[in-house]
Amino acid sequence: MSQKGNMLIAQSGGPSMVINQSLVGAVLAARSNRKVGKIYGALHGIQGILDEDFIDLRQETRKTLELVANTPSSALGSVRRKPTPEDCQAIFAVLKKLDIRYFFYIGGNDSAETAYIINEEAVKSEYGISCVHIPKTIDNDLRENDHTPGYGSAARFVACAVRGDDLDNRALGGVKIDVIMGRNAGFLTAAAALARVDEDDGPHLIYLPERPFSIDKFVRDVKAAMRKYGRCVVAVSEGIVDENGTPIVAKFTQETDSHGNVQLSGTGALGDLLAKVVKERANVKRVRADTFGYLQRSFPGIASETDALEARLVGVAAVQAAVEEDISRGSIVIRRKPTKKYGVTFEVVPLRMVARETRSMPKEFINRSGNNVTQAFIDYARPLVGALPLGARLEGMRKK
Amino acid sequence: MSQKGNMLIAQSGGPSMVINQSLVGAVLAARSNRKVGKIYGALHGIQGILDEDFIDLRQETRKTLELVANTPSSALGSVRRKPTPEDCQAIFAVLKKLDIRYFFYIGGNDSAETAYIINEEAVKSEYGISCVHIPKTIDNDLRENDHTPGYGSAARFVACAVRGDDLDNRALGGVKIDVIMGRNAGFLTAAAALARVDEDDGPHLIYLPERPFSIDKFVRDVKAAMRKYGRCVVAVSEGIVDENGTPIVAKFTQETDSHGNVQLSGTGALGDLLAKVVKERANVKRVRADTFGYLQRSFPGIASETDALEARLVGVAAVQAAVEEDISRGSIVIRRKPTKKYGVTFEVVPLRMVARETRSMPKEFINRSGNNVTQAFIDYARPLVGALPLGARLEGMRKK
Repeated sequence: MSQKGNMLIAQSGGPSMVINQSLVGAVLAARSNRKVGKIYGALHGIQGILDEDFIDLRQETRKTLELVANTPSSALGSVRRKPTPEDCQAIFAVLKKLDIRYFFYIGGNDSAETAYIINEEAVKSEYGISCVHIPKTIDNDLRENDHTPGYGSAARFVACAVRGDDLDNRALGGVKIDVIMGRNAGFLTAAAALARVDEDDGPHLIYLPERPFSIDKFVRDVKAAMRKYGRCVVAVSEGIVDENGTPIVAKFTQETDSHGNVQLSGTGALGDLLAKVVKERANVKRVRADTFGYLQRSFPGIASETDALEARLVGVAAVQAAVEEDISRGSIVIRRKPTKKYGVTFEVVPLRMVARETRSMPKEFINRSGNNVTQAFIDYARPLVGALPLGARLEGMRKK
Repeated sequence: MSQKGNMLIAQSGGPSMVINQSLVGAVLAARSNRKVGKIYGALHGIQGILDEDFIDLRQETRKTLELVANTPSSALGSVRRKPTPEDCQAIFAVLKKLDIRYFFYIGGNDSAETAYIINEEAVKSEYGISCVHIPKTIDNDLRENDHTPGYGSAARFVACAVRGDDLDNRALGGVKIDVIMGRNAGFLTAAAALARVDEDDGPHLIYLPERPFSIDKFVRDVKAAMRKYGRCVVAVSEGIVDENGTPIVAKFTQETDSHGNVQLSGTGALGDLLAKVVKERANVKRVRADTFGYLQRSFPGIASETDALEARLVGVAAVQAAVEEDISRGSIVIRRKPTKKYGVTFEVVPLRMVARETRSMPKEFINRSGNNVTQAFIDYARPLVGALPLGARLEGMRKK
């Protein structure tokens, strides 16, 4: 492709702590490339293209961009909207009118699908445009990627939160249930395991959407942990499903978005349900449930350094791919080097390899009983999250 | 008093991010004082005294103590138990047997009351003991104190969380409700206001337990904010009450502790209730509610530096007071210097001045409509919380 032209970039789906790193990485790379003319930032994803609602990203100072890069959430605004065929035609009218030749869409699998649809339309219309998807999802569920930008920071939040919560539970006892984001993939919930220092530290039980959730088994597990530890901390995914694949929380809420997804976050229903079950059936007096909610993707000041850097670099890689010959459409993916020391490379794969379908936790990351993760998962996740402020216990308490 | 003897220290009530600073401050001060013999750490507050369940705090290394000081939650374990007259007699038998002459109890108003009861028994029994309460509560509701150790760090968590959440809400829109801890005092909820940078930043509405909460007025307020900002972020205390003083959430939960307190935390009921009301009555499609829960008091690595330092110093001050003549019983309180530059002094007041009753937000900290805080509160709270990682928005977005 490699033609001169204008650029348009937008953000889509759930925000993350580092999605602005990718935006700023792409914008700064584009600003220093002679092939790129105007740089439009579309507000609220494709909605901003349809409404021709843009800001000029050449006007932002380097200082502002660096501050924004370190600010959570999507600086251009986001959207959860899948374009219809009519939307695509309207989008092309705008892209052509503005002579957009470089289009970047930052988001998860739904966003990759949107980029795929737009790209297909571009091919049909014989309109020359480089169309690159920049990966982002705290769920870590994009195919082809070793891991996704946004995951490491959200995982860091979860590990820190569960560490503090486990220390809190040590102080006051009983059962504590923490409900963690992740619609279909358990990666984020699994990160709770990184909170452990001592052998008897929580989380003592971890439930993932990859394994059918049985209330009876859950009650038995909690009882066993109470006998062993005298207390119990549970990390559970908001997306746990029963044997028929029905989300446990779906029995308590009906709202769906335009991608047909049930609302799992922004409600305490699942935690309250599980707490009630434990109180009644495991006969525990002090049971508490917290739903970590949107803090997992938006808490400022605690991003994983590795995650922030990689998020920046996928933005840069997207622009590099777009301006090169023959690699004009695709999704940037992160591969882990097979070296002992952690490192990654960035590649470009066809959009359809990342779009629509998601991936789940591999079997080797989940224990046989389906209520914990394996050492293989911990080895996988630790470098993504970085060193954690786990603190220490009194030596006298450890000997008790 | 100032006699030679052994020391006993314990922690009580809800943990905080810096309660171990007070423990370590007291232990290190005591270890360097010749009047203090053995240093017993009682496990889980008075429960550990009754059960004679101790660890030897002279055995801990300085390095471990410093690590523990920077670790959230109560390192000795905690308890929510008000001693009965029989408990007090049993406690004295243990204190006498161990020749305890210095007793320190770290906690909130319930803990000050416990220290008061034990001290009264000591006076009656003519048993010479220095009995000092060390303040701690994230609620910031202890009388006589300008503010309390634990508050600044919890307030910092709340301000950061609401900042991230407000940026998230800017990206995806709708109404976001954040439920924040604080049984009777709105200080912690009010700290959400520190998240604001721009004039149109959230939280747009703040509801405190100090003012009766009306569902009708709440719906009107949300509608008005939606008209003005096109979105709305609400910070609401878990302890909001109706005109009769009944907690709104009490209609949905019954559990109480031994101090007769209704369970407000560890449930998403209030947030879900308010979200339902907004959906139905303010006709907003996207409404989310998060309950910050125990993370507010236990999240590691983000304590306010000022709060951590002051928590350390109240521990030191308690030991200094205990070993001095004539100041052998009381509660350490924090006074703010009347200087322009922020600073504090520590004093000792009689235990009954801090025990049992709590304080609320002063009137001048709450706006007339009862749905926001004043600049006076922000000026009060900012130095306690420290500089926040508030980040920045794109200049182009600010002009929109």
